[in-house]
Amino acid sequence: MSVQEMLRTHPAGAPEEALAACVRECFDCAAVCTSCADACLGEESVQELVRCIRLDLDCADVCIATGRVLTRRTELEPQLARVLLEACAQACRLCAEECESHASHHDHCRVCAEACRRCEQACNELLSSIG
Amino acid sequence: MSVQEMLRTHPAGAPEEALAACVRECFDCAAVCTSCADACLGEESVQELVRCIRLDLDCADVCIATGRVLTRRTELEPQLARVLLEACAQACRLCAEECESHASHHDHCRVCAEACRRCEQACNELLSSIG
Amino acid sequence: MSVQEMLRTHPAGAPEEALAACVRECFDCAAVCTSCADACLGEESVQELVRCIRLDLDCADVCIATGRVLTRRTELEPQLARVLLEACAQACRLCAEECESHASHHDHCRVCAEACRRCEQACNELLSSIG
Amino acid sequence: MSVQEMLRTHPAGAPEEALAACVRECFDCAAVCTSCADACLGEESVQELVRCIRLDLDCADVCIATGRVLTRRTELEPQLARVLLEACAQACRLCAEECESHASHHDHCRVCAEACRRCEQACNELLSSIG
Repeated sequence: MSVQEMLRTHPAGAPEEALAACVRECFDCAAVCTSCADACLGEESVQELVRCIRLDLDCADVCIATGRVLTRRTELEPQLARVLLEACAQACRLCAEECESHASHHDHCRVCAEACRRCEQACNELLSSIG
Repeated sequence: MSVQEMLRTHPAGAPEEALAACVRECFDCAAVCTSCADACLGEESVQELVRCIRLDLDCADVCIATGRVLTRRTELEPQLARVLLEACAQACRLCAEECESHASHHDHCRVCAEACRRCEQACNELLSSIG
Repeated sequence: MSVQEMLRTHPAGAPEEALAACVRECFDCAAVCTSCADACLGEESVQELVRCIRLDLDCADVCIATGRVLTRRTELEPQLARVLLEACAQACRLCAEECESHASHHDHCRVCAEACRRCEQACNELLSSIG
Repeated sequence: MSVQEMLRTHPAGAPEEALAACVRECFDCAAVCTSCADACLGEESVQELVRCIRLDLDCADVCIATGRVLTRRTELEPQLARVLLEACAQACRLCAEECESHASHHDHCRVCAEACRRCEQACNELLSSIG
């Protein structure tokens, strides 16, 4: 993703790696969750996937908001970043747990669970690094 | 806003008033903050409004995500709702404080500060009600 | 919605009524469609509502983008506004047609169809006014 | 981006390459434009970058909506896809032209212009392929 190259050209200078990784994973996870919700909708067993669709949609919304806020390095507010990272890690964890329970039947849930776990970890690592 | 009427037609039944109010204020605040960011961009003194624009954009993103997650009453996750409401109250508070400091010069900042305070309060009231 | 009051405080002055109405309907329709998608997910007959959920989600996304672009009156690009209004009117029309076909069974689809028709009309009126 | 892997796991089967490329470029361009708007806000010469910030924000919003709609392959509406792709190509072209005019002074505008041109091309190629 060229957002990585982008972040390095900011007037504030290159970001720490934990921030760059988190931005990348948030946007990737948002796209993947949007796709998983739709793939679930396309399954014959959609009735059994209602909770999965709902958590996919939530996770996509929270990841986009988090990715956008973290991308804005001018006047970044550590307090807001912190609570939003907690919300994002939570949304990713809930969605990953649900997708993992369908992963053996639906490949899209397996791929989605992996993206959610990577994003959850990136949020937690950035949380550690900003203290 | 017809979203109020909408929420009452959900198969889960009419929502508690604190939830309906919070959804309404989140979507309203998102629209207002988007508009305030642009109004600030249109001012000659844009250089002095950089922090205000940034917080407007953050607040709009967090309010949209929160409004959408709260609107989804099927399989609502109280844990996720709670941490997201905290993030949203925080984003609204930061944006309100900044806008209040420009309210005597810029009417858009006055209107935006009021919308942010209403949304902050609606988030806090919903937080109290979900315990 | 205080976005109406907001638009009047913009350094560009009060907007024409067609623009203000369109912004209001876009944000309202986005919220209503998000809610209808979730209400459909909560119905036992979710399998029959797959196309409705999909069009609700599309309509919500296009309405938010359109509402945000129109809200930005600084350096507004008429070309972009025009093609985006066409996309939004289209998304609203498709969603309204689908929701109308479920309106007698599901009250949320009735309310959603009405919001979509109002937004479609507001987009078409703004299109006429910007020529 | 794992959204590429994701699209292949959809119950509708692997997508044509033009669709997969367009989804990838839309999400990438949305992230890059969000970052460019903020980098412009962080420049001392922000007053001269007002039009650039505005077009960055528009392009980010239209790209996210387009990326999300295209990702939903269940019940995809070719009419809506077409007009939305036209809007997205337009938003990308306008943003690219503006960023190109600042590319020699601001590296973020150079990177952003490149992402916008790639996304514009991907939209146009998908438009050709869906006829």
